Amino acid sequence: MSGGAAQAVVAIVSVGDEIILGQIEDTNASWIARELQRIGAMPGERRAVADDRAALARTLRELSATHAAIVMTGGLGPTLDDLTRESLGDVVDPGAALVRDPAGVEHLRDWFERRGRAMPELNLRQADRPPSARLLDNPHGTAPGISARARGPGMGAGCDIFCLPGPPNEMRPMFEQAVVPALRTDGRVVLTAALHTIGLGESRIAEQLGDLMRRDRVPSVGTTASDGIVTIRVRAAGAEEWATCALDQTVAECRSRVGSIIFGENGEPLASVVGRLLVSRGMHLATAESCTGGLLGAFLTEIAGSSAWYQGGFVTYANARKVRDLGVPLAILQEHGAVSHETAIDMARGCLRASGADMAIATTGIAGPTGGSDDKPVGTVFVSVGLRGGQVFSRRFHFPGDRTTVRRRTAHLALACARFTLLGEPTRSLLWSEAEAVRIADA
Amino acid sequence: MSGGAAQAVVAIVSVGDEIILGQIEDTNASWIARELQRIGAMPGERRAVADDRAALARTLRELSATHAAIVMTGGLGPTLDDLTRESLGDVVDPGAALVRDPAGVEHLRDWFERRGRAMPELNLRQADRPPSARLLDNPHGTAPGISARARGPGMGAGCDIFCLPGPPNEMRPMFEQAVVPALRTDGRVVLTAALHTIGLGESRIAEQLGDLMRRDRVPSVGTTASDGIVTIRVRAAGAEEWATCALDQTVAECRSRVGSIIFGENGEPLASVVGRLLVSRGMHLATAESCTGGLLGAFLTEIAGSSAWYQGGFVTYANARKVRDLGVPLAILQEHGAVSHETAIDMARGCLRASGADMAIATTGIAGPTGGSDDKPVGTVFVSVGLRGGQVFSRRFHFPGDRTTVRRRTAHLALACARFTLLGEPTRSLLWSEAEAVRIADA
Repeated sequence: MSGGAAQAVVAIVSVGDEIILGQIEDTNASWIARELQRIGAMPGERRAVADDRAALARTLRELSATHAAIVMTGGLGPTLDDLTRESLGDVVDPGAALVRDPAGVEHLRDWFERRGRAMPELNLRQADRPPSARLLDNPHGTAPGISARARGPGMGAGCDIFCLPGPPNEMRPMFEQAVVPALRTDGRVVLTAALHTIGLGESRIAEQLGDLMRRDRVPSVGTTASDGIVTIRVRAAGAEEWATCALDQTVAECRSRVGSIIFGENGEPLASVVGRLLVSRGMHLATAESCTGGLLGAFLTEIAGSSAWYQGGFVTYANARKVRDLGVPLAILQEHGAVSHETAIDMARGCLRASGADMAIATTGIAGPTGGSDDKPVGTVFVSVGLRGGQVFSRRFHFPGDRTTVRRRTAHLALACARFTLLGEPTRSLLWSEAEAVRIADA
Repeated sequence: MSGGAAQAVVAIVSVGDEIILGQIEDTNASWIARELQRIGAMPGERRAVADDRAALARTLRELSATHAAIVMTGGLGPTLDDLTRESLGDVVDPGAALVRDPAGVEHLRDWFERRGRAMPELNLRQADRPPSARLLDNPHGTAPGISARARGPGMGAGCDIFCLPGPPNEMRPMFEQAVVPALRTDGRVVLTAALHTIGLGESRIAEQLGDLMRRDRVPSVGTTASDGIVTIRVRAAGAEEWATCALDQTVAECRSRVGSIIFGENGEPLASVVGRLLVSRGMHLATAESCTGGLLGAFLTEIAGSSAWYQGGFVTYANARKVRDLGVPLAILQEHGAVSHETAIDMARGCLRASGADMAIATTGIAGPTGGSDDKPVGTVFVSVGLRGGQVFSRRFHFPGDRTTVRRRTAHLALACARFTLLGEPTRSLLWSEAEAVRIADA
């Protein structure tokens, strides 16, 4: 995987005690790894190093001997524990002092002036760089980036080192601006596609994909799963024309084998897909949530522009709210319990009635950790989808996992039920649903 | 940070192409880093390495020269790209072939037999180990772990290497079983405390903490920020009795300097704190959400047992829902707009009326990316908290960041407003609030 002749292999270094101590996840490194592949470079070794000048310099020396480039994030702040500048100097200009870059000073003065704040003297450190290095513009924060080249015996053209700030909103644009043009390999690319599915488990999807998932296949096909959504990942590396064509063919083959449980591509959220279907049918949606307690609404309103197809709804966490806001008969709650087909159906009916929307989704279930019974263990969930003037479909699920997982899976599967209803397959068999799990009533 | 005489410094290595390629986050490494601190060891360098025998062996050689121990995860599977066993052998028993461990073979046969499945021949590789190493039991999966000692010139007692399987449910118990007893330093511990605050920015909190944040202070004090919540982290390493006392003293000092904006400790969610306050006052809460669209309800119902103090509420994303479900007068919406003190106050009033709850929280704002104006740019949010038979307090905020950030900050600050109202400080000055930002009306 590492090595390889044609492709630049790029090491990734994350700087900071908070990563070393496990206080934050190192999401910068995985983002950079994915971006490198997109532009045809190959991620090599990945390291995290504490705020320690000697350890940082040793890391840069070791990696620059074995990699064509290094992308480093963090340690560019103004305080005395920010040591990326000094350690970079130790490697690219050993023995030389840092110089204070005039353009960097100007950037800092501007930054504070435009915000009407006095610049603390300490911030001037952020304009320092090794003599042979150059600063990289940062329109989104105080810290300029730094790029430099490490040269040494046996290193050929040397190793390009890019030091970027740690905050993702500053790091990412600087990566696109300064690192991508330097590392992009002409003609050679790594193209990826992600197909998102909901409605079958990962192993069932693997069965349907069959020999497409062979490890030696080119382009490669793999799967990952999260909260009920299984993503099929296709990856083609090579000359651009070939990779484009090969990727398209493999994606088409995956689509034909897996079918309509693929709801979107390349990161499109399920809520956005449901929104598009609603718009195309001129319909408005409302929600009635018990066990998800607002999470379904939060998923829907996370989509910018969702007001075009989502009105809002009811968080009916207490039974009193199900009665009062949705008109669920007390008798239904007493006879069948709040977690039942009957209650789910009456929640959807009541939501249609109270909202005037064209479609309603209702959720009720036992998210845990307590509240389960033999009959209805923790993870038992009913999702109901109703259409104005049409029918209401209630489906029983049993989700494994903790409270957070059960709630997220419920919200995702509720959206999946809505999607299949909008596609005209309201009773379609779905992940984790039990035998005889669908109940149908009039809206 | 790395180095240090008394404490064992332990490197962490994660093996696998899926990490290098950025397909999964390396959560094992941060978990191990936190566990090491808990038992008095210090996390040192962290690396991720591809499924590449030479690169793995080089990594183990480099790290064993500078660390007392290495904890490595992944690469112990049965397939031919699982190379941890071979690369460990290259380092601890160079030149020697792996041996097949009889107890390992027995574990594998048992594992498959008990599941009524035939063992693929390939799985026997999982019983292989370097001659000087020993296997570690894995009750939760097929792959035994391996422990071995690397010795070399200048390495003193050598470096203990622990190879653990990648799946967290197998790795974590094995870490507790096999790594903890070997690395625990008698009497010496690292204790940490986290104090969560909301209501001031990170720099203002740093001002209040003052010299407590000096980098050379023992115990150390630092801050991290996320979605409006600033966490103060205290860390004391040393003999157990001293560390316990020193941590308590520093935590008390932080509390006295920062005061009532500290809402909880050690991971307690803000919603849970609000819940406890409601219970202690015998009050029930309801919500009326526009820009958060259910997220506030989702935060509240993420707390197990929240039905004792949270009834539910209304997602009134569309104006029509604000009128119909909350009784916000159309004239108010037309005159002042949906994003205004007036609408927020009438949403809270309507929520109290429609729900019968003792307290209501309402949110309305412009989450973006579109919809802003000069007067009310993207990020403008009004949060209103009303008390039955009392007053309604509306507060204007302006949150920086993208749609997701604005919504999460809104939900957090809404909970902070509710908390200060329950504490009898409803008009307390809060993060990002503008001059004259509070409006008060009757409920």
